[in-house]
Amino acid sequence: MPAPPNSTNQNTYERLCTHAREVALLDSMQSLLGWDERTKLPPAGADYRAEQMSYLAGLIHQRQTAPQVGEWLAELADSPLAAGPHSETGSDIFNLKRDYERKAKLPQSLVEEIARLAVLGQQVWAEARKANDFPKFQPMLERMVKLKRQEAAAIGYEEVAYDALLDEYEPGARTLHVAEVLAKLREQLVPLVAEIAASPRRPRLDVLHRHYPVDMQESFGRRAAAAIGYDFDAGRIDVTSHPFCSTLGPRDVRLTTRYDKHFFPGALFSTLHEAGHGIYEQGLPSDRYGLPTGQAVSLGIHESQSRMWENLVGRSRAFWEYFFPEARKTFGDALADVSLDDFYFAINDVRPSLIRTESDEATYNLHILVRFELEQALVDDELRVADLPAAWNEKYRHYLGIEPPNDSEGVLQDVHWSGGAIGYFPTYSLGNLYAAQMFEQAAEDLGDLNDMFRHGEFTPLREWLRTNVHAQGRRYPATELARRITGQPLSHDALMRHLRRKFAPLYGFE
Amino acid sequence: MPAPPNSTNQNTYERLCTHAREVALLDSMQSLLGWDERTKLPPAGADYRAEQMSYLAGLIHQRQTAPQVGEWLAELADSPLAAGPHSETGSDIFNLKRDYERKAKLPQSLVEEIARLAVLGQQVWAEARKANDFPKFQPMLERMVKLKRQEAAAIGYEEVAYDALLDEYEPGARTLHVAEVLAKLREQLVPLVAEIAASPRRPRLDVLHRHYPVDMQESFGRRAAAAIGYDFDAGRIDVTSHPFCSTLGPRDVRLTTRYDKHFFPGALFSTLHEAGHGIYEQGLPSDRYGLPTGQAVSLGIHESQSRMWENLVGRSRAFWEYFFPEARKTFGDALADVSLDDFYFAINDVRPSLIRTESDEATYNLHILVRFELEQALVDDELRVADLPAAWNEKYRHYLGIEPPNDSEGVLQDVHWSGGAIGYFPTYSLGNLYAAQMFEQAAEDLGDLNDMFRHGEFTPLREWLRTNVHAQGRRYPATELARRITGQPLSHDALMRHLRRKFAPLYGFE
Repeated sequence: MPAPPNSTNQNTYERLCTHAREVALLDSMQSLLGWDERTKLPPAGADYRAEQMSYLAGLIHQRQTAPQVGEWLAELADSPLAAGPHSETGSDIFNLKRDYERKAKLPQSLVEEIARLAVLGQQVWAEARKANDFPKFQPMLERMVKLKRQEAAAIGYEEVAYDALLDEYEPGARTLHVAEVLAKLREQLVPLVAEIAASPRRPRLDVLHRHYPVDMQESFGRRAAAAIGYDFDAGRIDVTSHPFCSTLGPRDVRLTTRYDKHFFPGALFSTLHEAGHGIYEQGLPSDRYGLPTGQAVSLGIHESQSRMWENLVGRSRAFWEYFFPEARKTFGDALADVSLDDFYFAINDVRPSLIRTESDEATYNLHILVRFELEQALVDDELRVADLPAAWNEKYRHYLGIEPPNDSEGVLQDVHWSGGAIGYFPTYSLGNLYAAQMFEQAAEDLGDLNDMFRHGEFTPLREWLRTNVHAQGRRYPATELARRITGQPLSHDALMRHLRRKFAPLYGFE
Repeated sequence: MPAPPNSTNQNTYERLCTHAREVALLDSMQSLLGWDERTKLPPAGADYRAEQMSYLAGLIHQRQTAPQVGEWLAELADSPLAAGPHSETGSDIFNLKRDYERKAKLPQSLVEEIARLAVLGQQVWAEARKANDFPKFQPMLERMVKLKRQEAAAIGYEEVAYDALLDEYEPGARTLHVAEVLAKLREQLVPLVAEIAASPRRPRLDVLHRHYPVDMQESFGRRAAAAIGYDFDAGRIDVTSHPFCSTLGPRDVRLTTRYDKHFFPGALFSTLHEAGHGIYEQGLPSDRYGLPTGQAVSLGIHESQSRMWENLVGRSRAFWEYFFPEARKTFGDALADVSLDDFYFAINDVRPSLIRTESDEATYNLHILVRFELEQALVDDELRVADLPAAWNEKYRHYLGIEPPNDSEGVLQDVHWSGGAIGYFPTYSLGNLYAAQMFEQAAEDLGDLNDMFRHGEFTPLREWLRTNVHAQGRRYPATELARRITGQPLSHDALMRHLRRKFAPLYGFE
């Protein structure tokens, strides 16, 4: 039995926590700078924003890697406070140590350079995408890939360099393991997509492309987000070109979306998606804000929340049994001659497409595979940035059987790489897998979820997630958290069961 | 003849500048936090925002008062770089020294406490104003007044405690001098207002209270702001409850306004006003951002710019000769039966009123006098916060002949005190005086300004201001800058001349 913590340990732990909370104050300012950059910043303000971001990144890095922190952690390593790795104190100490060691390996100049390039890179990317001009973006991406390779080298890795980058977003994940799971998924996904493609049944897609006034989409989206449990008192929705959710404080979690008045699902499902992220953040223990026990586990677990609300709930028939009458009331003419079945089929249309964010539940993970493989090749120096567009197009032909007519709809479509987020994409697919696994378990624990959704009851699922996921903070690493909740290891099975169960009746196969 | 600067001096000066620019990076983040707080922050986010503001204020204060800065300044004091007090280097050194000495007198804990209370105070004030509940706000204001008294004591002063607070907003100004000038203004203003009140002529005010759709007000306001020279590429307009202009970077200067669909002038004139501030900020030398030569002189000079564009330009008949046809086109029905003369008279209606921000050019300064006198009494401990509402009402009776029916329209109407801005109000009147003095000089230098406005030509005036005011940064203190431009000391004469010249024909007196 470990000795009870002495008061020195306790003091040190508290000093460590105070320090972490101070870093969180700076971190939250960085989030505000980032949120503002992507929603409000005047064009001419970009250069100075890059200076601000770079300076603040350096300041944060300095604090995060202060030698004092290392000393405190060393002192606490053998203390009883660190003994239970999943206790509040134990998990804080374990994760603070992990984060400290990772950050301490990075030179401050590299951190500052990446932060500066991320702001400028995003500006150039946006222009390049608009102008369909990959060569304009190429030098920026070359610099970024180089910096991220330096980052991987500084962090170190056991198997492949990509591990070091993936680990930032999905702590503890290994590239080869993720690749293996996704390969199994692909093996079953490709035939499923082929089966669907072979079906003579097709939804009426025109019903989604009628006139949906933006202000009505906005109020409908707000009602839907509030219904599933996003708290607008501690959040807001703004417009951006690439929707995201950002946490600016323990009670300030903001969503973004984008509207197209001639396409209804775009804004609504991105709102539900980001609201799923927001509900997770709003459900974290706010009194632990800034400490690991008040933080999300990983991007994969984060994405499991957004995907669950977007797809497993938001694209379910039961959800629309509740919301379709309201949609008809809101949008009047546009839906007057549309039945619930028509609508439900239309929002679940499966077909290979070019744009990841607009793709369906089935083909989505093929878009991720393309990016995951290309990222690894870039990091391993097996692919030059100059050759990226051709490689991209080739992979789209291979996995999805289609080819982008231009780079704007191809390699330039996503913001991630321009902002330095390399190693991020696979977490989207992990999220899909975790979501399906958790959703099966929730149904087992709570009973007929569809019957609840049909009646507008989303609280039971949300509370189940709050208890099992949100309130846990970072007590368990992602795979362990998922295993504790579902009793299963990470696997493609639940997602494939869900997809088959959903699409077989729609497309008329077994 | 002073010796040429040696390379040690030069290095020290550059170190000093680098340091100042770093502080500006942090300052600009504080501006973003403040802008966001007043335009976007979700209600539940206020507590944490107060923590962020307090922490950042402390961090900035620490840097600003680093002993190193004092040493650099001491070294440079006798160097040739400091010799010309109005040269680029000389004025930077002079002003950095001034700012350093002021800041160094304030304990960090006091700075942090004021910053925290400012955020929370503004939240409580907003609720209290809404609920017409002064007692709710009273304890916050009591704490703030106490802290500002501590600030004044720490700063020190020669004549009166209020000097120490005024000096933050209007460097070098003295309370007794300002009071003397404003007293002379009042002596002439009160009879003018009485003369106007005695006139049988009255404008048709109903024409301003028709239906003016918000989106059209917005686009009209944007066109007007752009026409006078506000650069939207380096700025934006948002909605807030108390309009302001905020600089977030050398090329990021943001305006705010508020819309009332049944009152046209509110949003437009606040937009022109804030655009005036914005044009000043956008006209500062952006390569000196963060250094005194890249900063505005004082709030009085700042207000001279906003007041000039709002009143001397925006409420002139010539301005509307150009813009009225466009307004009729934009607002159609609302202005169909309204003549230019009707409209011009309506937007220049003079009458004692309750709300400062909605008051006319003539009575405006009486609103300021009320606040200026009450602030001094609070700071001198001659007035208790509990007695403030009664004192407010009494002064309104005395100066304006009317009394607020409730505190929301009385003592609770302004945000300033809740945010710790005590000593700020008189700069509004200084702005009116400086604006009138400069405008007379501009007309002398440029010729018939009205003829330019009539043709939509605002560039000559803006360029004149750019050269004479904006590009100067803080090279000269406010009174000296104004004297250099106009050849006159600060005086009420030009403003009174303007008011008589404008209102005599409207109200039919000499």
